[in-house]
Amino acid sequence: MDAQNHQFRLAARPVGLLKPSDWSYVEEPVAEPGDGEVLIKIRYISLDPAMRGWVNEGRSYIPPVGIGEVMRALAAGEVIASKHPDIAVGDHVTGLLGVQEYAIANGAAVMKVDTSLAPLPVYLSTLGMPGMTAYFGLLDIGHPSEGETVLVSGAAGAVGGLVGQIAQIKGARAVGIAGGAEKCAHVVSELGFDAAIDYKDQDLNAAIAEHCPDGVDVYFDNVGGEILDAALAHLARNARVIICGAISQYNATGAMKGPSNYLSLLVNHASMTGFVVSDYGARYMEGATEMAGWLAAGKLKSREEVAQGFESFPATLQRLFEGGNTGKLVLEVA
Amino acid sequence: MDAQNHQFRLAARPVGLLKPSDWSYVEEPVAEPGDGEVLIKIRYISLDPAMRGWVNEGRSYIPPVGIGEVMRALAAGEVIASKHPDIAVGDHVTGLLGVQEYAIANGAAVMKVDTSLAPLPVYLSTLGMPGMTAYFGLLDIGHPSEGETVLVSGAAGAVGGLVGQIAQIKGARAVGIAGGAEKCAHVVSELGFDAAIDYKDQDLNAAIAEHCPDGVDVYFDNVGGEILDAALAHLARNARVIICGAISQYNATGAMKGPSNYLSLLVNHASMTGFVVSDYGARYMEGATEMAGWLAAGKLKSREEVAQGFESFPATLQRLFEGGNTGKLVLEVA
Repeated sequence: MDAQNHQFRLAARPVGLLKPSDWSYVEEPVAEPGDGEVLIKIRYISLDPAMRGWVNEGRSYIPPVGIGEVMRALAAGEVIASKHPDIAVGDHVTGLLGVQEYAIANGAAVMKVDTSLAPLPVYLSTLGMPGMTAYFGLLDIGHPSEGETVLVSGAAGAVGGLVGQIAQIKGARAVGIAGGAEKCAHVVSELGFDAAIDYKDQDLNAAIAEHCPDGVDVYFDNVGGEILDAALAHLARNARVIICGAISQYNATGAMKGPSNYLSLLVNHASMTGFVVSDYGARYMEGATEMAGWLAAGKLKSREEVAQGFESFPATLQRLFEGGNTGKLVLEVA
Repeated sequence: MDAQNHQFRLAARPVGLLKPSDWSYVEEPVAEPGDGEVLIKIRYISLDPAMRGWVNEGRSYIPPVGIGEVMRALAAGEVIASKHPDIAVGDHVTGLLGVQEYAIANGAAVMKVDTSLAPLPVYLSTLGMPGMTAYFGLLDIGHPSEGETVLVSGAAGAVGGLVGQIAQIKGARAVGIAGGAEKCAHVVSELGFDAAIDYKDQDLNAAIAEHCPDGVDVYFDNVGGEILDAALAHLARNARVIICGAISQYNATGAMKGPSNYLSLLVNHASMTGFVVSDYGARYMEGATEMAGWLAAGKLKSREEVAQGFESFPATLQRLFEGGNTGKLVLEVA
């Protein structure tokens, strides 16, 4: 085929905030799939906080993206050529397809999704990685029970918004922390949380004390920093803290800020447990099935914010770290 | 009776390092026990890191010692007068008897101990609070298994020395961190740890990597600060970090240093859980019985450092925070 593929490749190892010169915009001809491979026209690219970690040097749960490589990203698209027996032209798939317009992938490395059940972006959101992150992190580590209070930071984000809704499905109270009145209104009015705290406008300690009068039984942390410290100061006995991310710290150039209040774990016989969603890879079907059921039953709202224009990738990704999005941020590829 | 009781009372709320003026030395006549009470001649006073926390203002797991009150301390002694039906003159008991030479206590608030099974100081050590701390913290939270590596800080201290020995009884490897060549020799030669790391002399990161080549499965932390951060950097997958104390931080006047490397929990699907020994109060008999059996079988060595002279209490307590002791520090009352 004659089409050209456009890509964002990693041009430099970023230090601190991502900047335009960290990326190179590359054009190359679209390739043909080999045996067992498929060619995918990408429709939506998922923009995730984890991407900041993927471009750092050094040991983590997966190797860093190499300089000169196509930026790693989850994406969803349509198969336009296939040399894999189980995947046909016209199928929709998701996978780690990269920040590009077309991807060649091994058929075994992508997942077919049914767009008659949910629109394609939902498979990057509630039925995708953020959904599984919220589901397994909250339920497997936090195991909230009836009447307990679940506090979650980044509550207007992709993962946080689901955490509170799942907590309520399990009979717990959901209190969200988000930045700005608009996001807080979204969290309460649209997602149905019991309360929201605007960390940009309210005294965090006073607000947590007000909305969690019996303490925090489960705290799901997406942000780290001062907000983690404030939550630690309000733990109930036997509380479970789930460390899912630390977006406030990802662009730090000095040492990370560790949680000064960690001895609250000692006083309250509480635990703090970290995870990455791939730890639960073997159980995705279980999570996806239950989440799809809740979605179909109207118990769960999936909110995506769809940004336009492939070329806007660097600026759109940066919005994540500035807290500019509400719901799951995806980039639509024309 | 005509004897005089001497006491150390809290004179001022300490800031940072404890100083002599934080205490008042008081003399008063020994009182008579009322109904249900006993009068105890104290023989040994336990000096514990937790005492630093007990004199801080503010919410913790127990109320702070009030200004003007006898300093709280665990102690062991002999009953010299009794108005409690189950306790006789000549019985030996332990309890929260305070920093004084004589104590009046409710008979129900002290525990009788058998000095024919173990010397009295051991009931403040391996068969007392430090023993239960090591036993329940390591086994209930850390649950080390055969072949795993257990790393413990404060390894020459009362709790740390027991943690490594219990780990070995359970078939795990024990690696200790202590300050100074003499303490490290004690940990390996006398207590039988597999290895010891001298944090004052060795590069911590390199030494942990050397002695824990497959990573740290269980880290039992008594110290906090830089040592906690170094241990976090070497966690194995599914590692358990036990937060028992943070003696390096107890005299801090500014904010505590939180563990900067806490995202190692996320990368390694690891947990960090805190506790205080009283969380396990209902299970002390279980711990004491098993520890006594190990002690009798020669599987566990109990090491006490006995300081002399009641008047030396302020200086002797300070030694704890300077890392001056090896084994359980107790003060013998003449």
